[in-house]
Amino acid sequence: MAKVNKNYLKLPGSYLFSAIGKKVREFSEANPEASIIRLGIGDVTQPIVPTVIEALHNAVDEMGRAESFRGYAPDLGYEFLRDVISREDYKARGCEISADEIFISDGAKCDCGNIQEIFGISNRVAVCDPVYPVYVDSNVMAGRTGAYNAQTGRFDNVIYMPCTAENGFVPDLPEEVPDLIYLCFPNNPTGAVITRPKLQKWVDYANRNNSIILYDAAYEAYIAEPDMPHSIYECDGARECAIEFRSFSKTAGFTGLRLGYTVIPLELETDGVKLWPLWARRHGTKYNGAPYIIQRAGEAVYSEKGRQQVREQISYYMGNAKYILDGLKSAGYEVSGGVNAPYIWLRTPGSMTSWEFFDELLMRANVVGTPGSGFGPSGEHYFRLTAFGSRESTIEAVDRIKRM
Amino acid sequence: MAKVNKNYLKLPGSYLFSAIGKKVREFSEANPEASIIRLGIGDVTQPIVPTVIEALHNAVDEMGRAESFRGYAPDLGYEFLRDVISREDYKARGCEISADEIFISDGAKCDCGNIQEIFGISNRVAVCDPVYPVYVDSNVMAGRTGAYNAQTGRFDNVIYMPCTAENGFVPDLPEEVPDLIYLCFPNNPTGAVITRPKLQKWVDYANRNNSIILYDAAYEAYIAEPDMPHSIYECDGARECAIEFRSFSKTAGFTGLRLGYTVIPLELETDGVKLWPLWARRHGTKYNGAPYIIQRAGEAVYSEKGRQQVREQISYYMGNAKYILDGLKSAGYEVSGGVNAPYIWLRTPGSMTSWEFFDELLMRANVVGTPGSGFGPSGEHYFRLTAFGSRESTIEAVDRIKRM
Repeated sequence: MAKVNKNYLKLPGSYLFSAIGKKVREFSEANPEASIIRLGIGDVTQPIVPTVIEALHNAVDEMGRAESFRGYAPDLGYEFLRDVISREDYKARGCEISADEIFISDGAKCDCGNIQEIFGISNRVAVCDPVYPVYVDSNVMAGRTGAYNAQTGRFDNVIYMPCTAENGFVPDLPEEVPDLIYLCFPNNPTGAVITRPKLQKWVDYANRNNSIILYDAAYEAYIAEPDMPHSIYECDGARECAIEFRSFSKTAGFTGLRLGYTVIPLELETDGVKLWPLWARRHGTKYNGAPYIIQRAGEAVYSEKGRQQVREQISYYMGNAKYILDGLKSAGYEVSGGVNAPYIWLRTPGSMTSWEFFDELLMRANVVGTPGSGFGPSGEHYFRLTAFGSRESTIEAVDRIKRM
Repeated sequence: MAKVNKNYLKLPGSYLFSAIGKKVREFSEANPEASIIRLGIGDVTQPIVPTVIEALHNAVDEMGRAESFRGYAPDLGYEFLRDVISREDYKARGCEISADEIFISDGAKCDCGNIQEIFGISNRVAVCDPVYPVYVDSNVMAGRTGAYNAQTGRFDNVIYMPCTAENGFVPDLPEEVPDLIYLCFPNNPTGAVITRPKLQKWVDYANRNNSIILYDAAYEAYIAEPDMPHSIYECDGARECAIEFRSFSKTAGFTGLRLGYTVIPLELETDGVKLWPLWARRHGTKYNGAPYIIQRAGEAVYSEKGRQQVREQISYYMGNAKYILDGLKSAGYEVSGGVNAPYIWLRTPGSMTSWEFFDELLMRANVVGTPGSGFGPSGEHYFRLTAFGSRESTIEAVDRIKRM
């Protein structure tokens, strides 16, 4: 008899965003006149910028002509895209990452979820708490964790690193040494950023302990302060211990186009085995490349015009972030994030739980956010708002919250 | 210390198509004047049809306007695409597959590679020999097989089902009962097709033994003979034992656009667990949907014009197949396939091995094909040619082989 992967059954029933969707649907049906503003799920709302649209049209035309048609893409992605990434995202910042070390994919979520496959089942995994659920869930599904403990909201055999107001939402080095360490800065969900000296400490810690850091830099483009690291490879020794994930989703509004990439330095090895060939093998066997036209769209993001248009879009969202941050502060809320990240992290008033505040906000202000506890137990009493709405709805949402 | 997934190290060094690429490159450098014709890798060469190009342009324009911009796609794929697939690929053929049972993805290769993740590690896997390497390799990487035996060309703990001239390249029911059975018809690499009564026997066998059939129907659109099953769900009881994979790659030339889908009937269960929610969970956690514009392109394939244009393209390729088949037969080769599939499977002359014939063909005719032994030991003394070239190069290739 065929047996299922029983690890899947360890996952608690309802996924955070499904639970939110259900609550909103029910409220909406009971209150059809309510105009609901959604600042919950981290999806962008601004259209793809003109230069990228033009590149898409051109690439579509190429696919329609025999002489320029493209079939299967090269395993690692097209060189035109890997070259410009190496040059603009890395060498321009002083990081020696070559085009050969870049693997193009259909998004950072997929890469973050799939990367654990090249590691053994016995590795101890460390994650921030609160955390983007994909890091944990993909390891649960692979069998790298114990059971879910409903009491603590945690899986056994995972090292959770609390991110709290006390440590500025940047985790302390764990006492129990993990083998694989997931870090995400600028952070989802807290919006916190890490300084270069602090990130250097993590790199040194990983190299000292032969751990591998899985660094999710999906929100890198939102960094506004000058000294913050955009890549972990800005730290000495990161090539010996770190894999980095990047995304076009939030940088250029590609959530519906799907493009991202993973960097694995050629010399990165653990357990006597180089990691680059393992990931290349996974790519070659279980994946078939991002569409040609989407890779051309990604290339256009780096053109002079593309870069300028995308920067304007990010400024637009960060204008929203500032409006939310200032508005909530003036209303007496304890808020953080929102300066180098499109997420605002607020403390719920009094002793209210995250879900109680969710209900209150939905019912009294008709605004949807995300309960911090959905990202892990240390997110309890916190709440995430995103800057990805339109300016008008963001202003309206803040005004409604202030009036609450 | 971080440990790697040691199962990856069981995979033999060089992937079939890399080995071919290397040989061709070396020959080409030594013989720069040779005009090489590639009928090896199964990639299409005809451009995307006009109706699909138009749909792509329209969808790109939608992404450039705020009012029609689309971010994250629904987890299972857009309803407009799942609806038309359910109606045209299934209900029109008498198969009761609903839109809810269809999961849109970026290709059948990914789905065939990923599907094993929802099954336990202890399952015994059966594959045809010769076989599309992804089925085996993805199970090796997951740890579901033993070591590779270089002598036999097989992995331990896998049930290989020989497909030979004697059984018409359709495997016999295995004596040792597998838990998971990979079948692919029309077949890659042999080009063989299975009749409905024979496929019904497989479905009955699976239901009798509580096995799950993983049915790869990526080449379904190439079926020309009237009575051959296009879907495993044309068989009674298949909803209780089968998962089906489909692809737009060969149907509509989407190898560079990336679109496919997987069907899991809602009631399909094994080991007391329904499979639909497991695959939905995997989709939700480790994948983020095919791009909106590509899903619109897929929809256009089902329009009246799209269908007609795609049919013409398939006829073009099958014209190539017939030319190869007839040409090689008249030259005295023993050939099969090529009637309901874009692959021609030929017996190498005399006692020549597959790789010896590869070298001979490359050197004497400057034609590239794929050695049958690369697909498994029962492929030894066979050779695969594809119908995906242009008509001119196909004619030229056959003429050169005849002159050899």
